Amino acid sequence: MAKEGVEKAEETEHMIEKDGGKDQESVLTAGDTKEMRAVVLSGFGGLNKLRVTKKVMPEPLEGEVKIRVKACGLNFLDLMVRQGNIDNPPKTPLVPGFECSGIVEALGENTKGFEVCKNPYMKLSEVVCTPLEFVYKIPDDMTFPEAAAFSMNFVAAYMMLFEVASLREGMSVLVHSAGGGMGQAVAQLCSTVPNVTVFGTASPFKHEAIKDSVTHLFDRNIDYVQEVKKISPEGVDIVLDCLCGENTGKGLGLLKPLGTYILYGSSNMVTGETKSFFSLAKSWWQVEKVNPIKLYDENKVIAGFSLLNLLFKQGRSSLVKIVVDKLISLYNARKIKPLVDSLWALEEVKEAMQRIHDRGNIGKLILDVEKSPTPLMANDSTETSEAGEEEEDHEGDTDNKERMPFIQ
Amino acid sequence: MAKEGVEKAEETEHMIEKDGGKDQESVLTAGDTKEMRAVVLSGFGGLNKLRVTKKVMPEPLEGEVKIRVKACGLNFLDLMVRQGNIDNPPKTPLVPGFECSGIVEALGENTKGFEVCKNPYMKLSEVVCTPLEFVYKIPDDMTFPEAAAFSMNFVAAYMMLFEVASLREGMSVLVHSAGGGMGQAVAQLCSTVPNVTVFGTASPFKHEAIKDSVTHLFDRNIDYVQEVKKISPEGVDIVLDCLCGENTGKGLGLLKPLGTYILYGSSNMVTGETKSFFSLAKSWWQVEKVNPIKLYDENKVIAGFSLLNLLFKQGRSSLVKIVVDKLISLYNARKIKPLVDSLWALEEVKEAMQRIHDRGNIGKLILDVEKSPTPLMANDSTETSEAGEEEEDHEGDTDNKERMPFIQ
Repeated sequence: MAKEGVEKAEETEHMIEKDGGKDQESVLTAGDTKEMRAVVLSGFGGLNKLRVTKKVMPEPLEGEVKIRVKACGLNFLDLMVRQGNIDNPPKTPLVPGFECSGIVEALGENTKGFEVCKNPYMKLSEVVCTPLEFVYKIPDDMTFPEAAAFSMNFVAAYMMLFEVASLREGMSVLVHSAGGGMGQAVAQLCSTVPNVTVFGTASPFKHEAIKDSVTHLFDRNIDYVQEVKKISPEGVDIVLDCLCGENTGKGLGLLKPLGTYILYGSSNMVTGETKSFFSLAKSWWQVEKVNPIKLYDENKVIAGFSLLNLLFKQGRSSLVKIVVDKLISLYNARKIKPLVDSLWALEEVKEAMQRIHDRGNIGKLILDVEKSPTPLMANDSTETSEAGEEEEDHEGDTDNKERMPFIQ
Repeated sequence: MAKEGVEKAEETEHMIEKDGGKDQESVLTAGDTKEMRAVVLSGFGGLNKLRVTKKVMPEPLEGEVKIRVKACGLNFLDLMVRQGNIDNPPKTPLVPGFECSGIVEALGENTKGFEVCKNPYMKLSEVVCTPLEFVYKIPDDMTFPEAAAFSMNFVAAYMMLFEVASLREGMSVLVHSAGGGMGQAVAQLCSTVPNVTVFGTASPFKHEAIKDSVTHLFDRNIDYVQEVKKISPEGVDIVLDCLCGENTGKGLGLLKPLGTYILYGSSNMVTGETKSFFSLAKSWWQVEKVNPIKLYDENKVIAGFSLLNLLFKQGRSSLVKIVVDKLISLYNARKIKPLVDSLWALEEVKEAMQRIHDRGNIGKLILDVEKSPTPLMANDSTETSEAGEEEEDHEGDTDNKERMPFIQ
């Protein structure tokens, strides 16, 4: 998401001030010399494959806009990319990152037409050039970190709830990782419909912080199927599953008649810091196939949703644009507001990724391009120590040797 | 669907007059002696298993209403029941039939509570007793044949289009058997949303009659996948499939990203007059299973819909009632109107079923309880002769020996 630089010079300055106003000179210097800082992934693997380097600043091609980046959103998907744990992985070295916010600095020639972006990455850097169709204007009230936290999670949550499923008054929704950026987007959008019950799973230390956004919260380490059934023996209307594997069968089993199960991710694939073929096979390729006749007998719906495929494989940016407009209306009406967990410098990308891996975040992690690395978290130390406890869950993992300490 | 007899005596007479006013004495006589005429299926098999006999008139149990039946809707499903070609077939002899319209004559004790009907059949007779939850009040303008044609097809079409899928402005829908009762309900409901494109398959002789209700009509005997792709290379948003078998894969393949395929029947199972295990296995049990990961990659949705299961296995009559209310509003606003193909006497049930089997109908076949058997069709002779041509499609069937001539 971006603000228009030329027409909004005054506001632009305001935003930069609001976002900290620190250490901006280096940014400008980099811009002047036509170089920029960027996160580079040198090869697929652990955190040690990431570093911040200087790169030649890109210029917008035909149909593109050049954006001076202010903030970048980090997603679970970035961890999967780092591991090479995705379909058709791109060649390394590459600049990772799927979403950012900033100020439009320049337009390429004929920046009007439609062109499918061949490279959805390249967002974790100071300057990004991207086709206009993937750029949305930021509302005046929205900060750059909020904007970077906004697009992917809220668009995906909206399309799943209202276009794939038909969320209506009185329905119930189950969402995993309710404390994450996506989980919070789902919870907020559910609150825009009367009388919707949200069941969520999250690490216990997050429960206090998110309890108002979710009707029934369960510990992510216990059997959510039994917990949901205790409260609602008939199950739920919509299951949003980012875990995959055996959770597909569990989710389908939890559906009420006419209910919809949506598979939208596979975070169970990332169990260790580097790619685990065992967990990958278990979670992904061995998902049980579904017999359409069973769906007929039980009146059930199963769906898959991938926003990246929709945008970059299937060229549906026009559909996404309509959704962004609806979401901005909801934002302006103060019905939704992206929840930012913490701000990190580009140089802190490893620690930020580790925090996502450890499921330590409540809301979205943002890389603030103008921020200097700090020895402590952007939030407070309480959460940090609890995130440390959370890490104990993973002691059994054997491929975590390279893991960085959470606080350096 | 029923009108209230006690409070609406005047209108009741009016409706009886409007529906023909012929041969009513036999009905009244049957009622007086506590006997009634009913279609009875003596065992699963061909048309020769059907006959009309006198049966003891039922009295409403607790929670039931007693309805003096005026008209019964015939469905493809009645043919499948006749063949015993359904899950958990009921014991024979039985009175078949799933929907009727008439006048409420009496209420059972405590006719208020909720009870799942254990027996959804019993509609093809002069008097029906059924739990109140399955009874809907007929709007004043609606005739009994329209009411009998209304409930199952329009409810199923509405729930599939608007609750399982999310039909919105500008979308496209593919429906098979576009000339049948369900196909016409789908087409009419699509016309209530702006700019919806309907692709339909139907026998060529029906095209002239239904061409205004469907945007693009294809011969049901040609490859609809190629025909749709010629017009819309990207495919369609919603596929409603009553054919099953290999059509499931074809339907999924035709979906645009975010599109929904709904399996709602299996009319390909009925190829001959009696059950064909070969076609059954081919169409039903050998449907290819679907990998959720593929749905994720392609952003697709697959669903099954069975109104009978929803009502009688899953006890969701309350959801259906809400939908009936919406549909009656659309009817009152003259946006939808059930299309009645032809009226038949109870004694003509075999010929009526044969007409469905031969796919000769345009709209819904209705058994008019007060009608005497006539030597010719209720409509005109043109359609009859064309329906006769249609029958040639089935010459290859080996198990059609028992087939009745279409016109006696």
